[in-house]
Amino acid sequence: MGDAGPVLERLEARRQELLEELSEFLRIPSISADPERAADVARCAEWLAARLARAGFEARAEPTGGHPAVVAEWRGAPGSPTILLYGHYDVQPADPADGWTSDPFGPTVRDGCLVARGATDDKGQLFCHLAALRAHLELHGRLPVNLVVLFEGEEEAGSEHLEPFLVENRDRFACDAVVVSDSGRLDPSVPAITYGLRGLVYLEVILRGPNRDLHSGTFGGAVANPANALARLVASLQDDRGRVTVPGFYDRVRPLEPWERDAFARLPFDEAALCLDLGVDSLPGEEGFSVLERVWARPTLDVNGLVAGYTGEGAKTVIPAEARAKVSCRLVPDQDPEEIADLLEAWLRERTPPGCRVEVRRLHGARPVLVPVRGRFMDAARNALARGFGAKPVLIREGGSIPVVETFQRLLGVPVLLLGFGRPDDRAHGPDERFHIADLWTGMRTSAWLWHLLGEEKAE
Amino acid sequence: MGDAGPVLERLEARRQELLEELSEFLRIPSISADPERAADVARCAEWLAARLARAGFEARAEPTGGHPAVVAEWRGAPGSPTILLYGHYDVQPADPADGWTSDPFGPTVRDGCLVARGATDDKGQLFCHLAALRAHLELHGRLPVNLVVLFEGEEEAGSEHLEPFLVENRDRFACDAVVVSDSGRLDPSVPAITYGLRGLVYLEVILRGPNRDLHSGTFGGAVANPANALARLVASLQDDRGRVTVPGFYDRVRPLEPWERDAFARLPFDEAALCLDLGVDSLPGEEGFSVLERVWARPTLDVNGLVAGYTGEGAKTVIPAEARAKVSCRLVPDQDPEEIADLLEAWLRERTPPGCRVEVRRLHGARPVLVPVRGRFMDAARNALARGFGAKPVLIREGGSIPVVETFQRLLGVPVLLLGFGRPDDRAHGPDERFHIADLWTGMRTSAWLWHLLGEEKAE
Repeated sequence: MGDAGPVLERLEARRQELLEELSEFLRIPSISADPERAADVARCAEWLAARLARAGFEARAEPTGGHPAVVAEWRGAPGSPTILLYGHYDVQPADPADGWTSDPFGPTVRDGCLVARGATDDKGQLFCHLAALRAHLELHGRLPVNLVVLFEGEEEAGSEHLEPFLVENRDRFACDAVVVSDSGRLDPSVPAITYGLRGLVYLEVILRGPNRDLHSGTFGGAVANPANALARLVASLQDDRGRVTVPGFYDRVRPLEPWERDAFARLPFDEAALCLDLGVDSLPGEEGFSVLERVWARPTLDVNGLVAGYTGEGAKTVIPAEARAKVSCRLVPDQDPEEIADLLEAWLRERTPPGCRVEVRRLHGARPVLVPVRGRFMDAARNALARGFGAKPVLIREGGSIPVVETFQRLLGVPVLLLGFGRPDDRAHGPDERFHIADLWTGMRTSAWLWHLLGEEKAE
Repeated sequence: MGDAGPVLERLEARRQELLEELSEFLRIPSISADPERAADVARCAEWLAARLARAGFEARAEPTGGHPAVVAEWRGAPGSPTILLYGHYDVQPADPADGWTSDPFGPTVRDGCLVARGATDDKGQLFCHLAALRAHLELHGRLPVNLVVLFEGEEEAGSEHLEPFLVENRDRFACDAVVVSDSGRLDPSVPAITYGLRGLVYLEVILRGPNRDLHSGTFGGAVANPANALARLVASLQDDRGRVTVPGFYDRVRPLEPWERDAFARLPFDEAALCLDLGVDSLPGEEGFSVLERVWARPTLDVNGLVAGYTGEGAKTVIPAEARAKVSCRLVPDQDPEEIADLLEAWLRERTPPGCRVEVRRLHGARPVLVPVRGRFMDAARNALARGFGAKPVLIREGGSIPVVETFQRLLGVPVLLLGFGRPDDRAHGPDERFHIADLWTGMRTSAWLWHLLGEEKAE
């Protein structure tokens, strides 16, 4: 097939048409967390399945127990690798009242960007692949690889049904590598492959004292105050250097390898610019690690919420009956969310003072993951990014979690290639979410090269 | 005048009439904190002034800059002491939605109690004196003492204008002793004189970090989290034995005298019953002090409110831009609220970690007070209580604050006699506030004896 040139030309020639098609996709309010939008989510799945079928895939929207998953297959390249392409067509909630300049589901072009909910997360990125694959099929009547497409419909609502769906359909999803485009890059000028994601454990800690709010004059000094006790308990989880004090917390933390520290140190990251952007005088944290190392490769303990007693204007002299904290830890390989939750809970129970009772609720957990940075598929992905962006890609990690990546790696046992087309300032999950139109073309070019280069490899 | 017998008989004969009159008083919703009730507060002042005038006082509702003060004078007993009687006719807010069984301003009799907002705090107690004084004037055409009545209209809203009003009218309020009935007793069967009240300093601590809420995945580990920092900061104010760690905090604390510790130990106080009532397994607190000592004579540090980040149901992975705590200390003689606020603020500023900025707001302050427990007026008050209740009174302190007591002692330099007619379970400030009708008669009897016995003393 020579190179990806003809596919690129075709995509180039159809820019206006493609932009309109993506806008149509973005107009469907496929908010998975909102039960009232279930019909829109289903309509979005049908929209995608129809497009994939028209392009030449065997495609349909399949039930999962939750929102449908769009599954499409093309298996006409015997001897070539089989690739699973993952994306999600559902989006975060969006309300004009949250600060949107324009209708979140009425895509508009502003400052070189397509502004809409889902523009970058993940409809825009998913669409890059859809467009490139279709162009290839139209031109060549075939693809360079065997392809299984899985576009999920409830990533933004917790992916509850994804793992059972993968397990039930294990044979159909057997593959040589997984491609995921649901991430970003550190710097607009530098393409990136993400090879590590943090996990998460999220607890709610409820301390209860007296059975009712009490007057702090009449009872102050007589009873344990749950709000004081909660502050002590939460503070006890870390030392004054930002290290988590809970024994065993760091036992399974995989140390950064020397090449990682070197590579991170060379990345274009401007600490002063970040301080300015966030309005802080410094970026303090765990000693001995750079900011990027702390965010990408070190576990954290953050208080996400606190509430107790009187929180209105002015003074109320109350001893609250209870106090609550939401506390979460970002985890790194090879920490296990269940094990860390056990350690935290034991520590909290042990330190709950007399006069108080503690309840610990486990609200959420996700495993951390590292994908292998070496291998022929990874090399193909790097080359595709280099050609698509016209710049050498860097390897990065992310501080957040994309639980599906760990699920793929664990269930399918193959490399997961995280090629992000987005930027840090794309406002994913926020108002005025956007996708730079330049990134749309770059993403399509990268995708075109990716299938081409992966097709030069052999099946395993 | 012999004894108080004829006055007691007259009060006895008019029970139904007095109960109806108190109910009329309670029906006026004189909520001082609610600007929409200003006309009701003024109407209540006029109601009182008219009754005092009809009884023989020179009385009127006087402007203060806030709600009116009712001032009444009777100075026909040269050579006898001049007594200032203080009470307040305003009440706390009350809403049926707060859990009232009946209309807070539709007094009803239930289980031997008059149930209404203000029943015990302070209309019912004030009314005991009004009834006894009037009966005395009706019977004898004179009083045993010179009397200045001051019924305040904004005690429940902070008494902002009281001190300036006292200063402006210093000559009219000059007296030999002050009588205040705005407190209670420890045990229903034992009358009490309160000789100590705690003071208060109330701060709001606001810690600010990044200029917006951040995603805990993308930024966790990079920035100081104000909620973590607030927990540490608040926890740093006390050690694990409940002592305040701030240097100088205890410097001016007057130690309990041996007679006080002995007296407190002999009081009918049941720790197990309090645990049961509050639903707690123990009453932990500062080491080396009993529960009553801790509540009455030791300073405290209580967190009254905490709020940061996400406080709704479930999980949100946010690093909050700010975190707030309301923290207050009950103070004991001779701690000074301003000085303690300075010490706390300096401590908090010194310990604010990099990446955060602290704001400390001073919301409220009140000086602690001890009144002399010996003296002929105090003896008269004890005898009046003994005769009114038919039991020997005890000396107690209170954990709360009645700032006006300190104001009287400081401005007028005379003993303040705190004769409480209420009970601990009268639900002051709460729903279904009540006054035991038995206490109404006991209070009137005590008041009748009080004026009689004070009249046997000479002016100073």
